[in-house]
Amino acid sequence: MTEILRYHPEPDELAYTFGGREPVRRVKPGTVLELYTEDCFGGRVRGVDDLASVVCEFPYLNPVTGPFHVDGAEPGDTLAVHFVSIEPARDWAVSTTFPHFGALTGTHTTATLQPALEEVVWLYDVDSAAGVVRYRARRGDYTVDLPLDPMHGTAGVAPAAFEARMTITPDAHGGNMDTPELRAGVTAYFGVNVPGALFALGDGHCRQGHGEVCGTGVEAAMNTTVIVDVVKGAATPWPRIESDTALMSTGSARPLEDAYRISQHDLVTWTADLVGLDTLDAYQLVSQAGEAPVGNVCDPNYTMVARVDKRYLGGATAYEGVHDRLRAAATAYRRR
Amino acid sequence: MTEILRYHPEPDELAYTFGGREPVRRVKPGTVLELYTEDCFGGRVRGVDDLASVVCEFPYLNPVTGPFHVDGAEPGDTLAVHFVSIEPARDWAVSTTFPHFGALTGTHTTATLQPALEEVVWLYDVDSAAGVVRYRARRGDYTVDLPLDPMHGTAGVAPAAFEARMTITPDAHGGNMDTPELRAGVTAYFGVNVPGALFALGDGHCRQGHGEVCGTGVEAAMNTTVIVDVVKGAATPWPRIESDTALMSTGSARPLEDAYRISQHDLVTWTADLVGLDTLDAYQLVSQAGEAPVGNVCDPNYTMVARVDKRYLGGATAYEGVHDRLRAAATAYRRR
Amino acid sequence: MTEILRYHPEPDELAYTFGGREPVRRVKPGTVLELYTEDCFGGRVRGVDDLASVVCEFPYLNPVTGPFHVDGAEPGDTLAVHFVSIEPARDWAVSTTFPHFGALTGTHTTATLQPALEEVVWLYDVDSAAGVVRYRARRGDYTVDLPLDPMHGTAGVAPAAFEARMTITPDAHGGNMDTPELRAGVTAYFGVNVPGALFALGDGHCRQGHGEVCGTGVEAAMNTTVIVDVVKGAATPWPRIESDTALMSTGSARPLEDAYRISQHDLVTWTADLVGLDTLDAYQLVSQAGEAPVGNVCDPNYTMVARVDKRYLGGATAYEGVHDRLRAAATAYRRR
Amino acid sequence: MTEILRYHPEPDELAYTFGGREPVRRVKPGTVLELYTEDCFGGRVRGVDDLASVVCEFPYLNPVTGPFHVDGAEPGDTLAVHFVSIEPARDWAVSTTFPHFGALTGTHTTATLQPALEEVVWLYDVDSAAGVVRYRARRGDYTVDLPLDPMHGTAGVAPAAFEARMTITPDAHGGNMDTPELRAGVTAYFGVNVPGALFALGDGHCRQGHGEVCGTGVEAAMNTTVIVDVVKGAATPWPRIESDTALMSTGSARPLEDAYRISQHDLVTWTADLVGLDTLDAYQLVSQAGEAPVGNVCDPNYTMVARVDKRYLGGATAYEGVHDRLRAAATAYRRR
Repeated sequence: MTEILRYHPEPDELAYTFGGREPVRRVKPGTVLELYTEDCFGGRVRGVDDLASVVCEFPYLNPVTGPFHVDGAEPGDTLAVHFVSIEPARDWAVSTTFPHFGALTGTHTTATLQPALEEVVWLYDVDSAAGVVRYRARRGDYTVDLPLDPMHGTAGVAPAAFEARMTITPDAHGGNMDTPELRAGVTAYFGVNVPGALFALGDGHCRQGHGEVCGTGVEAAMNTTVIVDVVKGAATPWPRIESDTALMSTGSARPLEDAYRISQHDLVTWTADLVGLDTLDAYQLVSQAGEAPVGNVCDPNYTMVARVDKRYLGGATAYEGVHDRLRAAATAYRRR
Repeated sequence: MTEILRYHPEPDELAYTFGGREPVRRVKPGTVLELYTEDCFGGRVRGVDDLASVVCEFPYLNPVTGPFHVDGAEPGDTLAVHFVSIEPARDWAVSTTFPHFGALTGTHTTATLQPALEEVVWLYDVDSAAGVVRYRARRGDYTVDLPLDPMHGTAGVAPAAFEARMTITPDAHGGNMDTPELRAGVTAYFGVNVPGALFALGDGHCRQGHGEVCGTGVEAAMNTTVIVDVVKGAATPWPRIESDTALMSTGSARPLEDAYRISQHDLVTWTADLVGLDTLDAYQLVSQAGEAPVGNVCDPNYTMVARVDKRYLGGATAYEGVHDRLRAAATAYRRR
Repeated sequence: MTEILRYHPEPDELAYTFGGREPVRRVKPGTVLELYTEDCFGGRVRGVDDLASVVCEFPYLNPVTGPFHVDGAEPGDTLAVHFVSIEPARDWAVSTTFPHFGALTGTHTTATLQPALEEVVWLYDVDSAAGVVRYRARRGDYTVDLPLDPMHGTAGVAPAAFEARMTITPDAHGGNMDTPELRAGVTAYFGVNVPGALFALGDGHCRQGHGEVCGTGVEAAMNTTVIVDVVKGAATPWPRIESDTALMSTGSARPLEDAYRISQHDLVTWTADLVGLDTLDAYQLVSQAGEAPVGNVCDPNYTMVARVDKRYLGGATAYEGVHDRLRAAATAYRRR
Repeated sequence: MTEILRYHPEPDELAYTFGGREPVRRVKPGTVLELYTEDCFGGRVRGVDDLASVVCEFPYLNPVTGPFHVDGAEPGDTLAVHFVSIEPARDWAVSTTFPHFGALTGTHTTATLQPALEEVVWLYDVDSAAGVVRYRARRGDYTVDLPLDPMHGTAGVAPAAFEARMTITPDAHGGNMDTPELRAGVTAYFGVNVPGALFALGDGHCRQGHGEVCGTGVEAAMNTTVIVDVVKGAATPWPRIESDTALMSTGSARPLEDAYRISQHDLVTWTADLVGLDTLDAYQLVSQAGEAPVGNVCDPNYTMVARVDKRYLGGATAYEGVHDRLRAAATAYRRR
């Protein structure tokens, strides 16, 4: 029997780091987690007059739900997390500029003497039935509907080396990768660094552009269902994602070319391994067949994704086929 | 009457810089150019034993066809180049690693003390009728067909400020942007820096992955037809591309986040201008609706593209509708 | 009466993170700490045949001594740490290449497909009386004496936002900045993030070049004496250093220009504040009078230092003159 | 007999590129050139009300004196340029912020949506007899004297590969490296790319800080004397500098770590060659003995210098001792 755990955290149960936290629950591999995740502002930005710099308090930003201890996950294993569904929990969502945050502004890292851009909030209508979010200009009356494409910006496990990292930072343990590829239907893979893996999830977006250039997506609380599983003895150096049609590697670093290098390096060596190719042969194949969807260019590390269509990989199967098994389990769960 | 110029350069007519060259022909706006472009190796790499480092001689790499003086193009104007068709000129194409070139190797810029990766050549079959190129592993017998998706890596005009730049370098004048978005059906826009603009074209790829990670695409000589036109009094700070469905800005720089910043900044301010939005409103719209297809992460400057679907822009028309006019002219030309 | 605490950690008392650790001792402001710090290899690389990749075990690298809870230090205060003396604890020291670590090699971040550089160990003679370390080539018989200039690569406090960071990473809390400016006679300033500050110290170098280009300095265990003090109500955004003649700001980030920007931004705004200058006037002054000694270009973040000679600052006094007071206390301590 | 050429360019003789220009004079190796160089503003910024954005016209910025064709210099040789003296030509000098230029502002490359910093001009008194320049705050009455330390920001030869580059851009041919190491008493080495080398010189600074953080130094017209010579058959991949006590390599690139890598890579391999060391042995020596004075962090490419004291190099002699010979020739010239 599939176990199902429903968990809606109280505000004081939210976590702000990966690592350094006790698990909120212990679950077995194969468990379906029905989770509520708060938005990156902790739900405090609810209208255009709610400036995040006023209503939010550092470091209580970008809360995650979890962590969950998955029984049997040990360092050297891989945690597989299949995203069954990601559904906006409200009929509105928000996006904002934030002082010295975003790609087209000086930041605390790319430090300049210029004043910050104005802090502005945009409120979106979320119409899940129609599958759209509605953008409204703040100055002038321009509106336009954009496709709803829900995703999670932040997902990951406890880091290695006794570290605890702010949820806003993406790195080898996952974290705030902010890639739209983390949508329903995919399986995400994380290398396990500590017993139980300690998976946590947050930062839902109704959608985001490539790079999240202003610093935020269409931020929303989410009702999200995932199935967690453990692939024993399989190492995963950086988070990977598998969809029905593609394999993806991620890299998170600065400068952006290093994020690109990490993700492409992983996809090349993973492809060589899966298809049985020489490394340079895999380098060539990925060079011509690979895609590189941009994740974020605004967080403490930038994120790039390297993607290759499975049809170019000669029927190779990753992680012993766990994606297909979880896909089937998700179907069974939905039909129950 | 549409004027048509067919031009197949002799080897000694090929150019290796943008700028610093006399035009090979003078043409009027609206002229259809039927061009032959040689591949980036000058056609000298014809089999897996032809190492580019042996058969090619620096700086005679990445030749371009042109430059063409377009009558009436003056600094401050924009040159519009509509790509009618891009067809591989041979039934084979090549790709190679090249010593200290590519994204997953030390380079002359990202200088390391490690020896270069092995120089290897891959020969592709090009089947234009079937619309595929065939990859063959060099070690082992793995083969796979990839979709043919012809494009030009290199296109541009003479730079500003009396400069002449190697064709391998992308910058504000265009050059070796190596983006797969430069395919048939699009119109490319270049800011004019010198009288006549001095447009040139080369470096055809049967296809390439995002970032051209190994340093080369599926390199091929091309028979390419373009129509050139001039938009008077319209400035274009960085090359832009328009397809039937999208507007795109490019940026070429290092580090890669600066290429991203340039392209996104241009798309945001262009969007604000076209739609009549406040700059921050346009920043928000592009943040949620924008895409960022990676160009190259291997050339002397890296290239990013910022793209937004026209359907989110409220019917805005760029450059006085020149794309639609050239699209129509292309149709008329093909039917003649 | 000055309190003096002598502390020589047992191997199992060493720390490998800033944050996430209980203090080893609690001390009062003004306490003299006589500390032993182990080298970055935990003392396990003792000869040219001791390869760090073999004798050391991740993540037990770069141990620090501490942390020390300094009574009265609260978030918003500044911890002042005056370096009285830094003395090599042995008559030998080591330096090594390490696979995929250093500035002239591909790394796990600047990922390449090239094999790692050979792992080589250099053993240095340390002659404290003569004030030199002796370099010996491993291949060939070239030797040369270099001036002894002891420093600590790693010093810092617990990070903000509930983080725990590997000691090898420099950031706003300090950490592995690897700047030769952290030598005897200076006072280092760290912003306090948690009650007690939780100061720790390690990674002594007999000397290092600018950037620590091969990835390690002349690594040595040290007997080091510091005096700790608290400046109440004074914020310090990034670690700063004061010598008898200069003020310095640090920045640690990637790419290296961001480390430069952070350090220069802090020095400019600090100068404006101390001298009473308009920000742009301070920008100009630092632009012409400032120096930028490179820290490291090999760690997970790169470090730059921005330095300005006090004689250009019109007699300004930083942090209420704590450097001079601690300088005097150090003299008294040495004469006791 | 030493030949002496005095050359004071007329305004219309100034050059704005390296490459793409006919030589203004042809000289023999060993010739003493007594040159006048205009400041980077073409002498048009003469007071605090002369905003460069108003009184200067792109691309007529950063003029250089030359180019000079040095007889016998052929591709593959090295041009040696000994700086005999650099003397401010006026008793004033200027520095400015410039819109979207400098390290602590968004730029055209690090593109942001923030408005530019205010454009401000600082006028310096130059007291050559006292050896100082006088800084004056624009707001408030703070003044301070800084040591006069004259240097040239821009020096170089025609680039390879038929290129012509704006004088503002530093690269392998030299150009606007903006390093204070290019002062009187040193010999600069440039790889020759075209017959005659085509050396040019400009952009004098009375002094500058490390990185030229605001974008300009203390800009001044200069009366500068150099002696040019040719080292046959000696390749120089990137500009190098030799002083009486040190050898230096430069690198110019983005991001800044690549400028560091280039300069350190060149110094390591040069050291290995000069001292007869294994490459990794030289890597180790430079890692501990090397310095890395920052050049510029504001120009189209950033510049780093790698420096090692000659006393650590076992008496090695670079370029057949040309520095010592030119040093002696300079002495003879001054005594004539």
